[in-house]
Amino acid sequence: MIYDVIIIGLGPAGISAGIYAHRQNLECLLIGKSFGGQMVSKAVDIENYPGFNKISGFDLVEKMIDQLKEKGIEYLEDKVVSIVKNEYFEIELDSGKKFQSKVVIVCTGAEPRRLSIEGEKEFLGKGVSYCTTCDGPLFRNKDVAIIGGGDAGFEAARFFSKYANKIYVIERGKDFIASSKNQEIVRSFYPKIETLLETDVIRIIGDSFVKGIECSKNNEALSLKVEGVFVQIGYVPTTGFLGDLVDMNDRGEIIVDRETLETKTPGLFAAGDVNDGRVKQIVVACSDGARASVYAYKYLNNK
Amino acid sequence: MIYDVIIIGLGPAGISAGIYAHRQNLECLLIGKSFGGQMVSKAVDIENYPGFNKISGFDLVEKMIDQLKEKGIEYLEDKVVSIVKNEYFEIELDSGKKFQSKVVIVCTGAEPRRLSIEGEKEFLGKGVSYCTTCDGPLFRNKDVAIIGGGDAGFEAARFFSKYANKIYVIERGKDFIASSKNQEIVRSFYPKIETLLETDVIRIIGDSFVKGIECSKNNEALSLKVEGVFVQIGYVPTTGFLGDLVDMNDRGEIIVDRETLETKTPGLFAAGDVNDGRVKQIVVACSDGARASVYAYKYLNNK
Repeated sequence: MIYDVIIIGLGPAGISAGIYAHRQNLECLLIGKSFGGQMVSKAVDIENYPGFNKISGFDLVEKMIDQLKEKGIEYLEDKVVSIVKNEYFEIELDSGKKFQSKVVIVCTGAEPRRLSIEGEKEFLGKGVSYCTTCDGPLFRNKDVAIIGGGDAGFEAARFFSKYANKIYVIERGKDFIASSKNQEIVRSFYPKIETLLETDVIRIIGDSFVKGIECSKNNEALSLKVEGVFVQIGYVPTTGFLGDLVDMNDRGEIIVDRETLETKTPGLFAAGDVNDGRVKQIVVACSDGARASVYAYKYLNNK
Repeated sequence: MIYDVIIIGLGPAGISAGIYAHRQNLECLLIGKSFGGQMVSKAVDIENYPGFNKISGFDLVEKMIDQLKEKGIEYLEDKVVSIVKNEYFEIELDSGKKFQSKVVIVCTGAEPRRLSIEGEKEFLGKGVSYCTTCDGPLFRNKDVAIIGGGDAGFEAARFFSKYANKIYVIERGKDFIASSKNQEIVRSFYPKIETLLETDVIRIIGDSFVKGIECSKNNEALSLKVEGVFVQIGYVPTTGFLGDLVDMNDRGEIIVDRETLETKTPGLFAAGDVNDGRVKQIVVACSDGARASVYAYKYLNNK
């Protein structure tokens, strides 16, 4: 059989796209490695998804999955290894299974780039976080370290200055990558923020919670006492299976039309964190999924 | 006092903008005529807001309002009559109260344009609807009339052809406004759809539910038995108080940057149904509110 729409990814964008495709009576199949995307591994409760004052990522995902199942929407937990477009999109899975569809919506999300150092995994949710907006308020009057001297790092530091007692911005390179404006503002108006260059974070230490980080600065050991470590060294969108069906920006995100979310390949859409929208939030991903399905429907209608 | 952000409108876009502004520690005030916007008057349960399989518009609004209140976000039920931008935005309310802010996010939504005929109000939610996507599945194997011969009307008819038994598309004018492609497709491939020109709908009749419509076609009486009446004659965005601070498209929607949702006036954003995004859905409005607040924060940070 040939599906109207195959949705790749089982995070909020994919689930929302599935709900909307179903609502429009399209024959649709969702395929993803596992349910929930980044939501599942979120350290703290989500407080900014409209409709739930406070809910764990796990519980919110569960609710969305239930919604998908209640509607009888077809899904498959498997990994897509390649897509080719001939008359239809031809999708091959890790298991060897193959599917065909008229439209594909890519919702594979992104993963925060990891430091890959000792303590990072162990203290995830116990002081280590990749999302400042989510976890900022938890660090009121505490000392925190932000790893990464790009705009994300500097903006995180400014954000934290409303809560934290002391904020370190730590950059491995010889220069900060953040815009000079961002750097200037921090130096002029944010006395709580201390910036460090040429500083390599070697390990994160603690007991039941983060207690500090051990660094090497110009080849000398440097220990900092902090209760929060925010890693802001970018994201890695999951796009490896797409070949040259899409164009990417310099962040590796799929470039889409800002209204329709269609990629350069007609009938191929990208929704959620994997596309080049700048605001990465659950509700934005859900909205993207909905919009992509609405335009998928229009695309099919115009064929 | 001068607020960082004043958000105008208490529907999903406004509430979501408020939650995000608060999360970013901005001094924020929400002002709106009443809570909920179009959601409150929705005829049937909402089934496509991710996180709730089935929920009434009223209940979903209530949950969002609770969220706002739990976070202690300030709001005021009043109508904005004018905004002027001097050093700050100066906002005047119906009650005569005045407020100042550095940023304004307009989330005043839109109202479906009404026919303003007998029976329209009485049968709202009892066969009369303004939202096909919402209510389509309820009319399986029934006859329905779509009022309005624009693209929205034709697309609604095509959408309904998956459910309904017979669909009338009724246009008052001498020609359909829908694209000729849309008209062609309907004529060629949709035998269930009958189109009528120069037909004025005079009243909607029924008992506990819609039973039919009475029309005048070329000055002759015409009665049609239908159980659903879908009014698709456009939306009226609520923008009267904005003067020339914004530019509008030909639908009366506020033109915004597609990424930041900023209008032509720096610091003035527009989120949700009031802006020129084409997909009008609750989750899209929520996403817009979130994005506008994120960019409001950036705007304030760069001042």
